Amino acid sequence: MAPLFSRLVVAGVGLVGGSLAAAVRAAGLAGEVVGLGRSEANLEVACARGLVDSATRDVRTAAAGAEAIVLAVPVGVCAPLATSLRPHAAPGTILTDVGSVKAALVASLEQAWAGVGPVVGGHPIAGSEASGAAAARADLFRGRRCILTPTPASDRAAVDRVRALWEGVGALVEEMPAPVHDEILARVSHLPHLVAYALALTAGEREIDGHSPLEYAGSGFRDATRIAGSPAALWRDVALANAGPLGAALAQFRTALGRLEALLVAGDAAGLEAALEAARAARRRLGRGR
Amino acid sequence: MAPLFSRLVVAGVGLVGGSLAAAVRAAGLAGEVVGLGRSEANLEVACARGLVDSATRDVRTAAAGAEAIVLAVPVGVCAPLATSLRPHAAPGTILTDVGSVKAALVASLEQAWAGVGPVVGGHPIAGSEASGAAAARADLFRGRRCILTPTPASDRAAVDRVRALWEGVGALVEEMPAPVHDEILARVSHLPHLVAYALALTAGEREIDGHSPLEYAGSGFRDATRIAGSPAALWRDVALANAGPLGAALAQFRTALGRLEALLVAGDAAGLEAALEAARAARRRLGRGR
Repeated sequence: MAPLFSRLVVAGVGLVGGSLAAAVRAAGLAGEVVGLGRSEANLEVACARGLVDSATRDVRTAAAGAEAIVLAVPVGVCAPLATSLRPHAAPGTILTDVGSVKAALVASLEQAWAGVGPVVGGHPIAGSEASGAAAARADLFRGRRCILTPTPASDRAAVDRVRALWEGVGALVEEMPAPVHDEILARVSHLPHLVAYALALTAGEREIDGHSPLEYAGSGFRDATRIAGSPAALWRDVALANAGPLGAALAQFRTALGRLEALLVAGDAAGLEAALEAARAARRRLGRGR
Repeated sequence: MAPLFSRLVVAGVGLVGGSLAAAVRAAGLAGEVVGLGRSEANLEVACARGLVDSATRDVRTAAAGAEAIVLAVPVGVCAPLATSLRPHAAPGTILTDVGSVKAALVASLEQAWAGVGPVVGGHPIAGSEASGAAAARADLFRGRRCILTPTPASDRAAVDRVRALWEGVGALVEEMPAPVHDEILARVSHLPHLVAYALALTAGEREIDGHSPLEYAGSGFRDATRIAGSPAALWRDVALANAGPLGAALAQFRTALGRLEALLVAGDAAGLEAALEAARAARRRLGRGR
């Protein structure tokens, strides 16, 4: 069977890009997988680990002959990178991405790629706090969801090829409008990040009688704020790119927290327990996960 | 060397109580460790695992001859349990606890135990989502902090014996006034719990275009809300017992989150990045932990 793509470029060979490259190679989905990156050291790791067939820091070398380009760089860097790849891309080259915000990003990619080829927005829901090619692993997407967000402008054949790519690496692919994706992810990802950052600030900014509260944090606090260890520039861009839905999620969260506080202030033990139990039931629907 | 206590009663042989009992036995800190519990099945596990020398569901049997009693039951159950132990306790019996809120709890214990013996408030900062005697382990407190909160009424010799108990099981013991403990723990434990419950509610209560956001939660959300899986009744009691400091922590959190949102709404990329970076720096002071 012929591979899906003769030459696939993965721009950004970090945890997500590197894992995709490795999985594509393992599954034989592309004739050739080329990694494009900025850090020589990281590209050397990618080559040494066999994540890619070849690696380059040059957009011209990368784009030449590419059938599809996957942008696996931070959300704020996607459109500028597409613009610099554009002059070197062959007509018809598919552009897709892995960004965790979609509507604004896909619109900017469609603009940057206009007249070149199809754009397909994508978001594999997988990752961890680890980063870089050293953390990449070919099974990262197995059994995980990957959301594609075609627009009315999307080429159906291109969407199907990108779908086949993600299904080929084991992901459960689903299509939905970008604004729906953004509303959902605002609630389960972007809001929790802002909240975790705010929790870390609250515990870190003020001493209590000469003690830093952080010194007394246990495993609960550690878990609750783990994502506040994520790179600030990356989440700054995600938050700004999804400001509308994130604002709505913040309002909903503030209402939920305010409800709990009102029960607390009222000393309403039964009401508070019922509300906490409802929250616990929601959380338990997730299971323990991996 | 003579043991610290001839007969130590651990009331509540769950994760914390069971681990303390096991550690006390392993270190030879007591002549005899008696477990008091309500669930026959859990006590059988405690006996089978050798966490205690003997176990009983009867307060009279437990209290008889006890030199010290450690309350390792949910915060809301401590004072009623002390009241039911009281008629059977010998004069001078030390009463201590492991509750995660201190001022209100210690006051109620001092009232319940008045005329019997010394009361020493304690809080080992250790635990996990696991529960029951099956999850207990003798090394749970090794290297972990344990806060003691003596009051002006506290007997110094009793405080020193409870300190020796926790140091004997490997904890790093520190004394501070109960209100200081409660302000600190409000920020690193009680607030994060309420926030996690509110995040779970936010993601769980509303469908987006027919999708439940929870279905799209990744590992970040899972970590951030893990503590929302904690028993509702337990955290209801902690929140109510520490309502004042928790209210102050909530106000501080709301201010921190509002500051992030204002930067987001203003599209202030530099300001937002600086604020997130400050939060990240605070979080990184914790390290990865175990």
